[in-house]
Amino acid sequence: MTPTLENYTLGRWTPGATAPQELLDASTGEVIALANTGGFDFEAILDYGRRVGNPKLRRMTFHERGRMLKALAFHLLEKKEIFYELSYRSGATRADSWVDIEGGIGNLFANASLRRKFPDKPFYVEGEPVGLSKGGTFMAQHLMVPREGVAVHINAYNFPVWGMLEKIAVNLLAGMPAVVKPAVPSAYLTEAVVREIIASGILPEGALQLVVGTGEGLLDHVTYQDVVTFTGSAATGRKLRAHPRILSEAVPFTMEADSLNAAVLGLDAKPGTPEFDLFVKEVRKEMTGKSGQKCTAIRRILVPEDVLEDVQIALGKLLKQTTIGHPLAEGVRMGALAGREQLQRLREQVTHLAKNTPIVYGDLDNVELLGQDRGAHADKGAFCSPILLLNREPFKHLDSHEIEAFGPVATLMPYHDTEEAVQLVNMGKGSLVCSIATNDPRTAQDFVLGAATNHGRILVINEEMAKESTGHGSPLPLLIHGGPGRAGGGQEMGGMRGVEHFMQRVALQGSPSMITAITEVYQPKAKQIEKDKHPFQHYFEELEIGQTYTTHRHTVTEADISAFAQVSGDNFYAHVDATSLEGTLFTGRVAHGYYILSKAAGMFVDPRKGPVLLNYGLDECRFTKPVYPGTTIGVTLTVKEKIGQEKRDETDVAKGIVRWYVEVTDQTGETVAVATILTMVKKKNQE
Amino acid sequence: MTPTLENYTLGRWTPGATAPQELLDASTGEVIALANTGGFDFEAILDYGRRVGNPKLRRMTFHERGRMLKALAFHLLEKKEIFYELSYRSGATRADSWVDIEGGIGNLFANASLRRKFPDKPFYVEGEPVGLSKGGTFMAQHLMVPREGVAVHINAYNFPVWGMLEKIAVNLLAGMPAVVKPAVPSAYLTEAVVREIIASGILPEGALQLVVGTGEGLLDHVTYQDVVTFTGSAATGRKLRAHPRILSEAVPFTMEADSLNAAVLGLDAKPGTPEFDLFVKEVRKEMTGKSGQKCTAIRRILVPEDVLEDVQIALGKLLKQTTIGHPLAEGVRMGALAGREQLQRLREQVTHLAKNTPIVYGDLDNVELLGQDRGAHADKGAFCSPILLLNREPFKHLDSHEIEAFGPVATLMPYHDTEEAVQLVNMGKGSLVCSIATNDPRTAQDFVLGAATNHGRILVINEEMAKESTGHGSPLPLLIHGGPGRAGGGQEMGGMRGVEHFMQRVALQGSPSMITAITEVYQPKAKQIEKDKHPFQHYFEELEIGQTYTTHRHTVTEADISAFAQVSGDNFYAHVDATSLEGTLFTGRVAHGYYILSKAAGMFVDPRKGPVLLNYGLDECRFTKPVYPGTTIGVTLTVKEKIGQEKRDETDVAKGIVRWYVEVTDQTGETVAVATILTMVKKKNQE
Repeated sequence: MTPTLENYTLGRWTPGATAPQELLDASTGEVIALANTGGFDFEAILDYGRRVGNPKLRRMTFHERGRMLKALAFHLLEKKEIFYELSYRSGATRADSWVDIEGGIGNLFANASLRRKFPDKPFYVEGEPVGLSKGGTFMAQHLMVPREGVAVHINAYNFPVWGMLEKIAVNLLAGMPAVVKPAVPSAYLTEAVVREIIASGILPEGALQLVVGTGEGLLDHVTYQDVVTFTGSAATGRKLRAHPRILSEAVPFTMEADSLNAAVLGLDAKPGTPEFDLFVKEVRKEMTGKSGQKCTAIRRILVPEDVLEDVQIALGKLLKQTTIGHPLAEGVRMGALAGREQLQRLREQVTHLAKNTPIVYGDLDNVELLGQDRGAHADKGAFCSPILLLNREPFKHLDSHEIEAFGPVATLMPYHDTEEAVQLVNMGKGSLVCSIATNDPRTAQDFVLGAATNHGRILVINEEMAKESTGHGSPLPLLIHGGPGRAGGGQEMGGMRGVEHFMQRVALQGSPSMITAITEVYQPKAKQIEKDKHPFQHYFEELEIGQTYTTHRHTVTEADISAFAQVSGDNFYAHVDATSLEGTLFTGRVAHGYYILSKAAGMFVDPRKGPVLLNYGLDECRFTKPVYPGTTIGVTLTVKEKIGQEKRDETDVAKGIVRWYVEVTDQTGETVAVATILTMVKKKNQE
Repeated sequence: MTPTLENYTLGRWTPGATAPQELLDASTGEVIALANTGGFDFEAILDYGRRVGNPKLRRMTFHERGRMLKALAFHLLEKKEIFYELSYRSGATRADSWVDIEGGIGNLFANASLRRKFPDKPFYVEGEPVGLSKGGTFMAQHLMVPREGVAVHINAYNFPVWGMLEKIAVNLLAGMPAVVKPAVPSAYLTEAVVREIIASGILPEGALQLVVGTGEGLLDHVTYQDVVTFTGSAATGRKLRAHPRILSEAVPFTMEADSLNAAVLGLDAKPGTPEFDLFVKEVRKEMTGKSGQKCTAIRRILVPEDVLEDVQIALGKLLKQTTIGHPLAEGVRMGALAGREQLQRLREQVTHLAKNTPIVYGDLDNVELLGQDRGAHADKGAFCSPILLLNREPFKHLDSHEIEAFGPVATLMPYHDTEEAVQLVNMGKGSLVCSIATNDPRTAQDFVLGAATNHGRILVINEEMAKESTGHGSPLPLLIHGGPGRAGGGQEMGGMRGVEHFMQRVALQGSPSMITAITEVYQPKAKQIEKDKHPFQHYFEELEIGQTYTTHRHTVTEADISAFAQVSGDNFYAHVDATSLEGTLFTGRVAHGYYILSKAAGMFVDPRKGPVLLNYGLDECRFTKPVYPGTTIGVTLTVKEKIGQEKRDETDVAKGIVRWYVEVTDQTGETVAVATILTMVKKKNQE
């Protein structure tokens, strides 16, 4: 019996109610599963996410959320072969499926690691403190807190696994639950992944709900605390963005739409150069990978006019090697499109494009197939040969910049100089990504600064990076994904940048002591707490934000400066040669900045063995006033921030990083140096 | 003759063509000016901004743009009395006008100063470099470039000066031109300011256009490279956000709408505490300042139930002192609303609200007026007394959280505990700002973390900050302004954050050498350039990004460590006591981190007098591997980034800051320490 896909909503699996739809194998046309695509109570589903999932996630710390993602990533990695088996049915080869499945899991790992950029708290302090008054009693600090709603993700059919995981990785790290609505044609694969996620019990209940349906009515119930993301066609995206609830509630809406991404062969990259060969290979890879069904795939190929023919020939040779057929058949390099409907649409678009810009490689109607023994069938499956079009007049025939055939299709076009290449590339009116193959830094800079306004990502291809490059087509978790205009105007991922979409930023104003108490980060001029013991004798847990140690004082002598010059070898004239100071900013021999820093450490360090394990580094050190012999310095050392660390294993010492605010003042009370220093401090509790 | 306002478009002043409208004095009802509000060729106006203004601004560096803003600020400050004279006619007192006029100019100054956070280039490098490969040959860096369109600002009537200046300050710093459409009722003041701006010649032609009109058709021509901002009513904002061009082109749209901002009296702030008094004063100030016509004004007053009456009495006393009348009349503390239309609407709203939540202070129909000799007139002007409503059941009567009367009107309501206060505040469904008066850090933290999801800004009022506080109602240039939900979901200003709205972010991928060349910031593992001379002997202009000095090597000895302990006084056990290391992370006496740093300096510094003026500080120093006696260290010093500085005056030395990447390695080639150090370097050209 054909299985019926289920939805995971309100804490249980249900098969859905109405409007059954058949999901077909892309190579054979066989029915894989049925999906009931209607009849959902979206009001209840969203409310469940907000009420049940949100409070649990928002109270977890970033570190807890990150470890949860890591566990989930390992769990799914164990189950990956289940997903590959289903992925083949979407027409994807092993390599295509790797991008979707392991690329998606990679996003979980990357976001898990990102936890280290955040404090071990549910919220985080963003940006620098802002002084708002002369006397220093009034200041501000921006804070980021998880939003109180659900993240609603409306995904595309081409990446049923990655498309979900790249998004939920981020909202989960931010502390928000998700409702995922995959595109129906490949929802069997998303469903399988969600099944494993739920079964693992790694996510708290309510953190993830799955709806296999058209999504009709889903947005009728979103509120201003929710976030909606959409990946798919520009037409659908526009419709969703105009939804009355999105507008009336000012719901954050992020859209990532397909675009006419370009690849440019630099003027310097003549035939015979490594960049020429790399370029042609990259274009082939992006035309045929996932049968060209990637929102980042190369659709426009811009080459210097004098090498147009060379590129056409070289590319044609590579495309010929692209064997097509059932993804599981031996020797197949390109599988099927997602379905017959997609194929039909592609044929119409290419036929339209070919009126002015002829097909110079490939055949829309005929394709040589491998794997017919496995059921691959030209009339039942959705196979298409790579198609290369040629537009000799790209400023005249504008369809190449406007109409996207979502498959293994690209258009070759000539340009004359880099400025023209920028113009042509930007005629895509906003793309996710473009590439340029060049080894000339000047060409690269001119192109990048010109094309940057129209792109979310730009790849510069040359020999130096080729071996390790992840390629034109791969969005990466630490880089933003999304482009302006046609590409939807959205921005996803990008490491910490992506997390921001699921949080509310608030500017918090008050006295330094109050801001310290609220943010749990010491703010200069806040109340300092003096204790009996030296802070180096306190364990990590015992240290209090604002706890301060005030040192004895020391009068800097000429002998100190000479001794420091001796030990460091730093004989810079201003420190050692009193006769050389004419025309300098100094009125006499001046102490080394590093002497002040080192001496400050000598004054604030408690030499006895204690919980402080080591000196880890320092940040934002500034020497604010010259120190001459005769100046008397004193230091305050204040606990600024505490960041707990995870044990690597059972035998590891339990510890954390303590950031200390160090201020060195002179006898007039003026600051001569400030720094933030980092130490590693043992925890009392070694469990 | 009544003057007709003019528009500054396409490089000239014109009076407009159709639909003339009378603009009236808010106190006397006299006609001030006429405005022709229709008949604009918006396609040409936007195109002019893009074609003429944009290229000039985008090619300027941030420092040039910032200096331009500074000059403009000084210029407008000189002309300020012209603006005050006009501002009185809008019903604003001197104090109200100060906020609008000098607050607006203050925004120019603040954004001018912000240039120092940016490089002296047209674009900037955003965030940290991202390593993308094990071998280090492939990496990424995010870049920000000015967008290629115009910023379209659709402003509200209440702040005709500030409303324009806070927005154009930011787009101009970012490198984009603006088209400003002020609200018609107070456009005479905006027009006067633009007239002075244009006459000054400080902005390049095309950088600013002014349209005094309804704006009908303005959005029909925006493209994806433009940015639209809107300040005003939620209803209009929603309509604009749904404009087909905004949707189809994915035009960035920022909205800042009025909201039902709340002030909360903390449970600890009993009558008799400083916080109680501060609270009542703040509420009075926010109810009556600008006659309550501020989008940040306090509309909801939440107080612990047991002090409800105390607050009502105390607030009533203060409100009684609010004398009303012509802004120029002696003793007047509150002027008029913007116009009779606004007054009429206010009366309707208050009448509706008063059905369930009665008026406990003030009178909708009668107001005692000062300045009738100057023409202030109860029936011709737009005067209204402060109105306080009381909602004893704020969870039942919800209009208090929904309906905003835009004038000197607020509703008092009781709460029981901090959790309930958070709930009530958040029932505003997204506000620009809220305040809490409390001196209890725990109350403050609980409230702030609970209310942060619903606010763009939160002010914590206590005695410590009171003298220097800028108050509940003042958006500040370095803090974000804008709130979620009802407040529009936008975010303006916020220092560097605001600039981002007018720029495109692009993730740039390539080899470290290529990224270095494009960004003009050295990336670790990029090619290093060795030159004949020591880099300390090069002037600022001569130093090249990537220029490297490789030092001699030095074997660290026990004597070095002892000598450093001696000179610094840092006798931390791990450095000096070889018998104490059991259970530590060290296998022997370890060199001080600051010794490594100091010795590195001793090795890379050229002691001779030269262009290097001083050591300024250091950033991101990390000690990555312990250094034991017998380890041989070597250092590379590489020019990472150059930031030119402006001369303070004629006599100042021309110089810049050079950021150097310092890497200390041991004999195995492993890194033991890294740091970015900052020096001040003289320019060769002292002109």
